[in-house]
Amino acid sequence: MGEVIASYRIDADDIKVAARAIAMEQSTGTWTKVSTATQEIHEKYGAKVVEVDEEAKVAKIAFPVEDFSLEIGGIPNILSIIAGNLFGLREVRAVKLLDVEFPREIVTFFQGPNFGIEGVRKLVGTSQTKRPHVGTIIKPKIGLPPERFAEVAYEAAMGGLDFIKDDETLANQDFCPLEDRVSRTMEALDRAKEETGKTCLYAVNVTSEDIVETAQLAVDNGANCLMIDVLTCGFPGLRALNRNFKLPIHVHRTMHGAITRMKNHGIAMLVFAKLVRLAGGDQLHVGCAMGKMESENFQANYNALRSEWYGLKPVFPVCSGGVHPGYVEGNVRAGGTDIVIQAGGGVHGHPLGTRAGAKAMMQAVEAVMKGIPLEEYAKEHEELRLALEKWGTQQITRYYSEEM
Amino acid sequence: MGEVIASYRIDADDIKVAARAIAMEQSTGTWTKVSTATQEIHEKYGAKVVEVDEEAKVAKIAFPVEDFSLEIGGIPNILSIIAGNLFGLREVRAVKLLDVEFPREIVTFFQGPNFGIEGVRKLVGTSQTKRPHVGTIIKPKIGLPPERFAEVAYEAAMGGLDFIKDDETLANQDFCPLEDRVSRTMEALDRAKEETGKTCLYAVNVTSEDIVETAQLAVDNGANCLMIDVLTCGFPGLRALNRNFKLPIHVHRTMHGAITRMKNHGIAMLVFAKLVRLAGGDQLHVGCAMGKMESENFQANYNALRSEWYGLKPVFPVCSGGVHPGYVEGNVRAGGTDIVIQAGGGVHGHPLGTRAGAKAMMQAVEAVMKGIPLEEYAKEHEELRLALEKWGTQQITRYYSEEM
Repeated sequence: MGEVIASYRIDADDIKVAARAIAMEQSTGTWTKVSTATQEIHEKYGAKVVEVDEEAKVAKIAFPVEDFSLEIGGIPNILSIIAGNLFGLREVRAVKLLDVEFPREIVTFFQGPNFGIEGVRKLVGTSQTKRPHVGTIIKPKIGLPPERFAEVAYEAAMGGLDFIKDDETLANQDFCPLEDRVSRTMEALDRAKEETGKTCLYAVNVTSEDIVETAQLAVDNGANCLMIDVLTCGFPGLRALNRNFKLPIHVHRTMHGAITRMKNHGIAMLVFAKLVRLAGGDQLHVGCAMGKMESENFQANYNALRSEWYGLKPVFPVCSGGVHPGYVEGNVRAGGTDIVIQAGGGVHGHPLGTRAGAKAMMQAVEAVMKGIPLEEYAKEHEELRLALEKWGTQQITRYYSEEM
Repeated sequence: MGEVIASYRIDADDIKVAARAIAMEQSTGTWTKVSTATQEIHEKYGAKVVEVDEEAKVAKIAFPVEDFSLEIGGIPNILSIIAGNLFGLREVRAVKLLDVEFPREIVTFFQGPNFGIEGVRKLVGTSQTKRPHVGTIIKPKIGLPPERFAEVAYEAAMGGLDFIKDDETLANQDFCPLEDRVSRTMEALDRAKEETGKTCLYAVNVTSEDIVETAQLAVDNGANCLMIDVLTCGFPGLRALNRNFKLPIHVHRTMHGAITRMKNHGIAMLVFAKLVRLAGGDQLHVGCAMGKMESENFQANYNALRSEWYGLKPVFPVCSGGVHPGYVEGNVRAGGTDIVIQAGGGVHGHPLGTRAGAKAMMQAVEAVMKGIPLEEYAKEHEELRLALEKWGTQQITRYYSEEM
């Protein structure tokens, strides 16, 4: 049988002692010898330290597959084992879970994405061109009434976008009830499709306590894509969407910074990226090369989402946060064309408004796909030119680096 | 209408600028001015910085109640707002959400615990004595087969304990399937009750992806208490248990250290304690005065769980992690008698085994309730004497301090 290998960067006086304490605490041990444990139990189910790099302060711990409860337990059980009590152990000053490797039997137990990159491309019609998808978050984050929300969505779709989405805090507030918002927005997107011939997906934020019921409301009102804040809602919500609905799932990672941002402590985004792929997200926010939310490790996250993984479909990495047309080229160069580039402020903040902002983003993608420098392409594309004038093409501020 | 007031400790060059950036990002703003936002929206739904303590580096931000979506959204929506993207803002080097105050309309929207301290006391029969409850985690954490698990449970109950529980990583592994474990354990507890006349609760860990289905399995096999790892499973799971089952809910906080441990960054346990009370946990692990998991702020957590709060029932604070009989007095002195004292290793690690370990814990509680020093009481109580000989009464190691 296989093993789950988790890598931890450990800040401790003695990394070997600390690593053993983690292996014990997360499998068969506790702080004192107990009469009820047997040698057989420790041998069969005990986790083992399999590698210690004293210089890098990284230890790898192997957990027997038998320790995990997949059918009842699932992702929460995985987290309780590889990312549970260990963060409070007295043997460590700080500890970061950097990565986790799953054996075939665990990966294939989970179905992974229903759509994946190719499935989403088919819905949008980009299977041939293979260009990056371009999306927007309807802004402002909260406050727009349904009719105005739908108008903004219409403008974005008329500008040629592939994808629009609710912001992560929008749910069913009185100023914008979910049913009214979804039905009006889908009607607006249908109208846009009649004019442009293009499908635009709308990821409805169904993050809620009874997510199946909420998602059903969205579907009943015409939703063609669902969205979840996976860390504030929990992985069971994502799995429930994956199992109960045949729509692509857009996964937002809000709150991750509380867990991922510190270099020495917490859980790396890479781990969440793998869990989201297992659980069946089709698109996931994982940072990008240029934007306000840059992460130095976005490449590792992209790899985790897109590499061959025992047959699971790849997940569309979403490049989001402070992105505008001037950053499109840098992001494609770093992340390839199998990405979703999302701009909120970078669309609705365009001097001529949302539709022009959407066009500018699409023009930037066209330029990159044609291999034409943005500044040159901008000469004949007014919307792009205005966007570049406003925001430029140079990375000015670094958001933060999740150092590994 | 009321406001939600969140307090953040901010590490930034300019705390006022950073606080404003948080207020913007978490309500109506983004990184650039957008054409779709109006002054009215900002005024109505924008969060505001209401207090900045430059010395303590703490800012308070007020969010209008209208920003929250309770019926659809619930706790996940609250977290996405007060604990969302802000952790990655470029204006801050680090930020910790220290506390949150909810107005009456939000607190009363949630039902809170179904049982609370008094409800659990009624089940166990301690409404008169008001003594601390004493529980144990069946150890080892994983590996015991159902029949052995039930034997250990029986011994614990015969030793007089009020409460036993699964460990946080135990679910439905092949070595100990949930149905078999629960039915055998409840049968063993029934046998013990016939002999002792006392009810012992068994908190079955139902942390899983379809938690209602799993909890129903547990109930069908006789469970009289349910347990959830709320942070790895998500708050919707807790709310689902609260709404669908009329059993007390024991809430474990595994993984919290990844989020709560750093002084400067993350989310304080106090915030999770309040959310668990809203969501309806009846018992919650929140640290204690003496044990391997000591937290300097356990008092604030205890207050949040037990103070009057617009009529919501109080939650039993669970004092757990490295506790043994020698620590009972210190924990009661610091936390009062309305606590659940839990010992895993401190019961099963007793020189004479589980039953004697349980007795030693109960004897320690008796001594404290009678105002007799442990060492004196131990003279006539063999089990307590042996426990004190093994582990002493002095706090030796400090686990860690979640400094506030």
